[in-house]
Amino acid sequence: MSYRKGYMSERELVHKLHKKGFMVVRTPRSGRMNIPLPDIIAVKKGRIIVIECKSRKNGFTVPMDQLEQLRKWESLGGASAFIGWKIPYKGWSFLKLNDVVMNKGNVGKKFISEKGISIDEI
Amino acid sequence: MSYRKGYMSERELVHKLHKKGFMVVRTPRSGRMNIPLPDIIAVKKGRIIVIECKSRKNGFTVPMDQLEQLRKWESLGGASAFIGWKIPYKGWSFLKLNDVVMNKGNVGKKFISEKGISIDEI
Repeated sequence: MSYRKGYMSERELVHKLHKKGFMVVRTPRSGRMNIPLPDIIAVKKGRIIVIECKSRKNGFTVPMDQLEQLRKWESLGGASAFIGWKIPYKGWSFLKLNDVVMNKGNVGKKFISEKGISIDEI
Repeated sequence: MSYRKGYMSERELVHKLHKKGFMVVRTPRSGRMNIPLPDIIAVKKGRIIVIECKSRKNGFTVPMDQLEQLRKWESLGGASAFIGWKIPYKGWSFLKLNDVVMNKGNVGKKFISEKGISIDEI
């Protein structure tokens, strides 16, 4: 995945969430200060959502340390954490953190077709 | 205020909040995509805090459009919004958005000594 492609996909997702009434932040790429950060943080009427975004053609494995970071946002922050995958020619689909953890971080097309939810369901 | 001074002050505040159990994000300076963003967003056990940070010697006025942006984080996002002022030789003090709005955005040393709260009270 090119940096630019990922960036454009994330921008698009930020706008989608904003249109749905969320206040949204894309976290900075640099200066992360060693504090775990998901790619997107969105809040709406007290609900907190954090999303780790992937924009690529084929399946992938989310590294264990990233899963643990997302878990902290859930346990300490009170957020709901998701892995978002922008599948070419299909668009964004989302997996609940717990489903991805249960699958050892592995995300493929069969898995997301079974467990994936749309932006309207997150 | 120099950019670097403000940056260092914000970093310090991010670490303080992190130590207090918040999951914290400093929002990016660039690429704001025309969506209103406070300087810091922090969440803890479902509580959402947003902070507009000022690091300067003398009083200041928060522009009306910034106040309105913070208001949106409260009304749409469900956050509690604060203006944080790092006063030289005194450290961080925080004002509730509503107090600052009632004072037409004006923040001075007398005002913050009356209405200001510490990091432990936000």
